[in-house]
Amino acid sequence: MLLSSLVLPGLLSGIVLGQTTTYFAPGVPRATAIPGNYDGQYRPRAHFSPPQNFMNDPNGFHRDTDGLWHIYYQLNPVEPVAGNQHWGHATSEDLYHWTNQKIAIWPFNSTTYVYSGSAVNDPNNTSGFFPDQDNGLVALYTIAASGGLQTQNVAYSRDGGYTFETYADNPVINVGSTQFRDPQVTWHAPTENWVMVIAYSQEFVIEFYTSPNLLNWTAVSNFSHYGLLGLQYECPNMVEMPVESTSNGTSETMYLLYISINPGAPLGGSVGQYFPGTFNGTHFEAVDSAFRIADFGKDNYATQFFSGVPNNERQISMAWASNWQYTSVVPTGDSEGWRGQMSLPRYNFLREVPQLGGWVMVSEPYNIQAILSEELRFRDDLGNNSVFADYSSVPSGALYFEANVTGLTDETLAGTLNFTFSSAVSGEYVSGGTFVGTDTWMDRGHADAFENPYFTDKFSATGVYGGQGRWSISGVIDRSIIEVFVNGGEQSMTNTFYANQPLDTVRIAANGIAEGATVSVGVWALEDTWAMQANANGTVLGNTTTSGNSTTSGNSTFLFR
Amino acid sequence: MLLSSLVLPGLLSGIVLGQTTTYFAPGVPRATAIPGNYDGQYRPRAHFSPPQNFMNDPNGFHRDTDGLWHIYYQLNPVEPVAGNQHWGHATSEDLYHWTNQKIAIWPFNSTTYVYSGSAVNDPNNTSGFFPDQDNGLVALYTIAASGGLQTQNVAYSRDGGYTFETYADNPVINVGSTQFRDPQVTWHAPTENWVMVIAYSQEFVIEFYTSPNLLNWTAVSNFSHYGLLGLQYECPNMVEMPVESTSNGTSETMYLLYISINPGAPLGGSVGQYFPGTFNGTHFEAVDSAFRIADFGKDNYATQFFSGVPNNERQISMAWASNWQYTSVVPTGDSEGWRGQMSLPRYNFLREVPQLGGWVMVSEPYNIQAILSEELRFRDDLGNNSVFADYSSVPSGALYFEANVTGLTDETLAGTLNFTFSSAVSGEYVSGGTFVGTDTWMDRGHADAFENPYFTDKFSATGVYGGQGRWSISGVIDRSIIEVFVNGGEQSMTNTFYANQPLDTVRIAANGIAEGATVSVGVWALEDTWAMQANANGTVLGNTTTSGNSTTSGNSTFLFR
Repeated sequence: MLLSSLVLPGLLSGIVLGQTTTYFAPGVPRATAIPGNYDGQYRPRAHFSPPQNFMNDPNGFHRDTDGLWHIYYQLNPVEPVAGNQHWGHATSEDLYHWTNQKIAIWPFNSTTYVYSGSAVNDPNNTSGFFPDQDNGLVALYTIAASGGLQTQNVAYSRDGGYTFETYADNPVINVGSTQFRDPQVTWHAPTENWVMVIAYSQEFVIEFYTSPNLLNWTAVSNFSHYGLLGLQYECPNMVEMPVESTSNGTSETMYLLYISINPGAPLGGSVGQYFPGTFNGTHFEAVDSAFRIADFGKDNYATQFFSGVPNNERQISMAWASNWQYTSVVPTGDSEGWRGQMSLPRYNFLREVPQLGGWVMVSEPYNIQAILSEELRFRDDLGNNSVFADYSSVPSGALYFEANVTGLTDETLAGTLNFTFSSAVSGEYVSGGTFVGTDTWMDRGHADAFENPYFTDKFSATGVYGGQGRWSISGVIDRSIIEVFVNGGEQSMTNTFYANQPLDTVRIAANGIAEGATVSVGVWALEDTWAMQANANGTVLGNTTTSGNSTTSGNSTFLFR
Repeated sequence: MLLSSLVLPGLLSGIVLGQTTTYFAPGVPRATAIPGNYDGQYRPRAHFSPPQNFMNDPNGFHRDTDGLWHIYYQLNPVEPVAGNQHWGHATSEDLYHWTNQKIAIWPFNSTTYVYSGSAVNDPNNTSGFFPDQDNGLVALYTIAASGGLQTQNVAYSRDGGYTFETYADNPVINVGSTQFRDPQVTWHAPTENWVMVIAYSQEFVIEFYTSPNLLNWTAVSNFSHYGLLGLQYECPNMVEMPVESTSNGTSETMYLLYISINPGAPLGGSVGQYFPGTFNGTHFEAVDSAFRIADFGKDNYATQFFSGVPNNERQISMAWASNWQYTSVVPTGDSEGWRGQMSLPRYNFLREVPQLGGWVMVSEPYNIQAILSEELRFRDDLGNNSVFADYSSVPSGALYFEANVTGLTDETLAGTLNFTFSSAVSGEYVSGGTFVGTDTWMDRGHADAFENPYFTDKFSATGVYGGQGRWSISGVIDRSIIEVFVNGGEQSMTNTFYANQPLDTVRIAANGIAEGATVSVGVWALEDTWAMQANANGTVLGNTTTSGNSTTSGNSTFLFR
């Protein structure tokens, strides 16, 4: 797998880098971020989406040693459909305001792709790449030859993640497989080893590797044929996360293995599942053989957890908020030149809910307060009434909403909290709601700009009343994506939708709530995180400097600028 | 749990039977079958549905010693919603033409219900109930007190399953649980024991019991926290079934444990899952920890396998074709006085499909030829064209259809086979199709007579090309239910639908099929299995004699006639 160092002719322009070449697709900016227009009707304003063309899996999510959040992502920089995979890149101080950065990792040639992977800080220089710094970053990812081998490769960054140099002795793992990908790496302090999880996709095996230095990897165990298989395992993540303590105040942790499945979700296409368990440095053991679904919508896949977050703190993740069944044909491509968005950043931890079979991974929006702007409605004692707001004047077109019932008892679990977001112009709407103590539902079937045999309309999830006197539903609606959370995230539901006219009115209603229970409801506008970056032409340029962005001190001695 | 033998006053009329009373709901026929009108627009004509009111789980499915098929079912004989559970009863010689029989098992009183269970022939009189016959039948089922204990009970029939006498020493299992139900019993020849599987529903445990006599039961093992948990495990079935042999012609068998989940299906509400494995007489061991979904529609629950079918023959099952999320509000109740139907009878066996993770339970219609009538269309070389038929003159309104592509190679896996059933009057339609070699989809969202937040519109399943040169889709549409099968049942999809106007035209189209591949398609009318039983008033009386039906020699010495 040592590739030629020749600079190839014709379409292939290249720069010698270790023993590889680099292919720069014609017309794609190399030295600066790709500019993007985020004005479109469907463009989320409080979610990340790529400046142009196509995005899928999260890659290399990490918090750097300065506290800055980095996301990389599978990017096709030349078409709004999958293909030509690169690692796009963006940074944020709060996980909501994103600065687009220049492409971080490029392929070797036009038929070899940079697939998914992860990135870790290597402060102790285990890799040897960073003799004189403690903010070195190592990316591990799959290189896929078109229709050929999938091997695991290393690139490293000495400037805080903006530019990468390819390791000279790639690949670091080559098992001769064409379906072997998506390495995710974490540091296991007790054994002082790096641990990799990686998918043998079509054999339904997650293999565990360990390494002292991120370069030499030893296969140590398998986890196979658990949960939903579908046709492929993809994008495994193993992460240690806190167990919510409801009794003694201690903060224990458990491990969680997350596996994405595509195709073959029960709802069709792409879905994520997780397995709580233990990990001893070489072997992961699930607590049981249960299948636990991560999100009850249809647009939540390939979740990646940020590395660099202490294990005893709530972990933080984002998912790709689309579905392979229709991602290549959603209307944002033709009308606005982009496809694919990330979910909201989410806090994650484990909660013990015996009625749901034991452990539930709670998934709640990360610090949404960071982008709340105007309070549109707030009622602390709604009764069995509703609030209504016209939000056509909210610049972002994006809202956060929350409805809570408190004072519940086992005897007063009754009633519903329902929401409807509609267009005053077309009458199109997206609706949903929760039955206090049980089910939550969502219907995107009345937004009419997209018709597809796989664009399922209705979703539901079953919750349980936990006895704490409360039941809640909250969520974010953001132009073409809605994410709903029940009871602070015991269930979540992520769905895209496409209406001909912007949705601009909201009604939230409580019905049948029992006496003695109190309903509060609030609706807030969200900041337009992209418009505030746009220039006079409406274009978001991203980072146009030649080094790292303003919040980091980029080291300027590397090639790709 | 020994109940009073007093005949209670007022609404409770009773007959002393062992140590129990019997409650006959006012107005419900005791001596004969409940009459039913099967003329309604939504009434399936090739599926079983109850004569009146509400049906849910299959119970006591068995083939008797004369070869007659018996189904019992959870019946509320007084309202078209769940409640007041009895065991309704019907018999058939071919699993399609059903004779309604009188209610087989009645409750003790108005607040105690006869829940689900199974029935087995006891030819060797292990139970001692049948000293002078070899066609004795023993039913094992749950008795549920309203909001109280769920215990396991025995009743036995000396007349071939038409009338039952309650065992004097019921319950046979009482563990003091309020969530412990749905016993299913099979004979395990190697150990000469009866084996029961039963659900601790909210603890996600299937418990295995053994007994030499169907009366004294010993708990021997647990199977817990496997697969989808949802909020409840229900209706477990363990069955030995053949493994399809593709190589050496031997017919091996494997065990399969089937568990129904409600609520909590990924699609919402009710769903069935299965676990292939081994069973040694006391312990079931799944081949792996994978979650395998039984049917990719939303109306297929609580599958029960017929006892009395030899283990080395394809097993036969039917499911309840509805979903607890909306079964109590579907329009058949208000307009036609009934709710709930069974799926088609299905052949089941295991097929090894490595690309789908190992074992797949194939589910194909049982001998549909038995009810084929007029051939409406047949083309043995359709090309990339379509067939169309107006079937408004077909008395049943029910069709069987099939489309096959043959001559495929790995290089010619292309194209689609799509179907649309529509109303020439209203334009409403149900559609679906399959992409050769991959996905199958269905859309019921354009039948407009029923709107409900849980009535999901679109469904899909992922298949794989097995290399045998063929790909097929087949199905039955029957007024308000459609069942589709891919590749002879590697995937199935069962969905109800409710159109304002009867669907009466069909189009089946092939598109993009590659050169060298051949498409054949056929559409046949199905018999109207109910209308042919109706009297001059359109009423199906069922069995109106006072003993077993005409094909069995009922023993007339028992109480309930």
